[in-house]
Amino acid sequence: MAETVRVVVDAMGGDNAPTEPVKGAVDAVMERSDILVILTGKQDVIEEELKKYQNYPKERIQVVNTTEVIETAEAPVMAIRKKKDSSIVVGLNMVKKQEADAFVSSGSTGAILVGGQVLVGRSKGVERPPLAPLIPTEKGVSLLIDCGANVDARPSHLVQFAKMGSIYMENVVGVKNPRVAIVNNGAEEEKGNALVKETFPLLKECKSINFIGSIEARDIPAGYADVVVCEAFVGNVILKLYEGLGSTLVKMLKAGMMATTRSKVGALLVKPAMKETLKAFDASEYGGAPLLGLKGLVVKTHGSAKAIEIKHAIFQCVQFKQEKINEKIAERIGEEASPKEEKAE
Amino acid sequence: MAETVRVVVDAMGGDNAPTEPVKGAVDAVMERSDILVILTGKQDVIEEELKKYQNYPKERIQVVNTTEVIETAEAPVMAIRKKKDSSIVVGLNMVKKQEADAFVSSGSTGAILVGGQVLVGRSKGVERPPLAPLIPTEKGVSLLIDCGANVDARPSHLVQFAKMGSIYMENVVGVKNPRVAIVNNGAEEEKGNALVKETFPLLKECKSINFIGSIEARDIPAGYADVVVCEAFVGNVILKLYEGLGSTLVKMLKAGMMATTRSKVGALLVKPAMKETLKAFDASEYGGAPLLGLKGLVVKTHGSAKAIEIKHAIFQCVQFKQEKINEKIAERIGEEASPKEEKAE
Repeated sequence: MAETVRVVVDAMGGDNAPTEPVKGAVDAVMERSDILVILTGKQDVIEEELKKYQNYPKERIQVVNTTEVIETAEAPVMAIRKKKDSSIVVGLNMVKKQEADAFVSSGSTGAILVGGQVLVGRSKGVERPPLAPLIPTEKGVSLLIDCGANVDARPSHLVQFAKMGSIYMENVVGVKNPRVAIVNNGAEEEKGNALVKETFPLLKECKSINFIGSIEARDIPAGYADVVVCEAFVGNVILKLYEGLGSTLVKMLKAGMMATTRSKVGALLVKPAMKETLKAFDASEYGGAPLLGLKGLVVKTHGSAKAIEIKHAIFQCVQFKQEKINEKIAERIGEEASPKEEKAE
Repeated sequence: MAETVRVVVDAMGGDNAPTEPVKGAVDAVMERSDILVILTGKQDVIEEELKKYQNYPKERIQVVNTTEVIETAEAPVMAIRKKKDSSIVVGLNMVKKQEADAFVSSGSTGAILVGGQVLVGRSKGVERPPLAPLIPTEKGVSLLIDCGANVDARPSHLVQFAKMGSIYMENVVGVKNPRVAIVNNGAEEEKGNALVKETFPLLKECKSINFIGSIEARDIPAGYADVVVCEAFVGNVILKLYEGLGSTLVKMLKAGMMATTRSKVGALLVKPAMKETLKAFDASEYGGAPLLGLKGLVVKTHGSAKAIEIKHAIFQCVQFKQEKINEKIAERIGEEASPKEEKAE
């Protein structure tokens, strides 16, 4: 039998806390037997929520009482430093002390990113841990790496992102030999800003990834690459525009359909199909964005995450742990970061 | 009566040349009497096209014969230098020599951008001429500035973009006191990459624009700002993602609707309304992107532009000339670029 994976879930994080994180935890342990969930947060509140459920394996849900909550508006560095008894800090410290394998939270992105780096710590050789959400495409999903808080990356960072992203897509999402591309402002060889121009040849030399060259933003939704590499400022623009453009188009289509009687009737008929399609194309549905390159796994779920997303994020952690992704990352990055090994290659 | 504006139209540029550019020119002179169009390209080909039309004011369409054509795949700098008798180079030179007021082309973006700068030349004080397409939003259109070929801008460039964009939106598009925002990876004060952090306070100090702060990419389609300022690499990502995401969503919606009989029937009924809405939201429909800050006006239309877009681009040139946009830009930029004036402010 597979080893049990211990996942801390922040019961206080996100717009729907504590209801949805707690429900996600219960659903997860009911569906799979190889999971132990540790809920961090106000014990009485969490226990009140847990009372809603009867037939779940109670021995596989633990509660760790924490008295503080980090709000989204707080400055991340300060919050992590001061609120030592918050659901985020306590949860991340459990991963650091290896009392847990992973941490899932829908709380403050900034605090999770800072806390992940400061408390859990980077894997050996990793220069900058990227936040890498899965985004929907015509063909399935792609990994957009990096969308983190640290902008103005160096070429060596992007090369590491490409490697870590490849390992993730191959082992967690199950894409064989994932195609890696760098976001660029054109397909021609001479295109690119200074960062892309410097990074491009380094990626080309990289034997451990399947680098296919530049990708224009136009081709990202079509799914031309599995691992979409970019600097975090650009990644943020892509991720947010995905959200904004999707919701604006839907709003406009709905309004457009209400303009005539004919289309009003049609709208009723197409509504279920439209809803289904748009759901499949909602970036927030794939809410579990891993923060890669740490000594443990940290997963950021969307601020408005529902139980199903939390459950999926927990499953993602199990896959991550059982597939030994961190060991694989540490091995590949650690190896290639050592100058001796580099020469030998 | 308003003065006649002389617009050169590249009859050889774009996927639909010469048919659509020629038709656009004919439509323009038939609709307004204050326009003279000069078509550059192979004379026999153009005259063959013109034969299709009878009742247009022939004295207001001239043809200038050129023997060469710059292809999209050619390296822009080389193409401009070598193909001196191409429709693009001859057209731009006419603007330079003030034999024409403006130049419209659906041809190679790179060649038009390079040619605009090298042949027509920059307005006094303008450091970098931006390419500024109009993008559709829930509320109408916004100006995305810069989407040009020169990336890695400096803060002073972005400040000039903000000023030029404001003048354009106010005088050509007719938005009073346009809201200017800078693309950022968050709304908080501490957010931004090095460029944005340096530019933000400069924009804040700028008295001649209505600066409203940062805009996240999510809020661009909602129309939170009229002038969206960013560096060209980021602008390119936004523009291309607009195109790609729109077409992917439509493709997926259509496929989704074909899944059940119920929605198939509905699809037939909503089709006209959907088409209308999506057309209004197609970035390429607003294809006339001006290259601002030059001594004359250069407008790049979409590579697949139809006659209606060419016609609109020609009208845009008329408005631009009659509203004396170049004089306004030269005045504001020239003034503020002079250190003496800056101190006096």
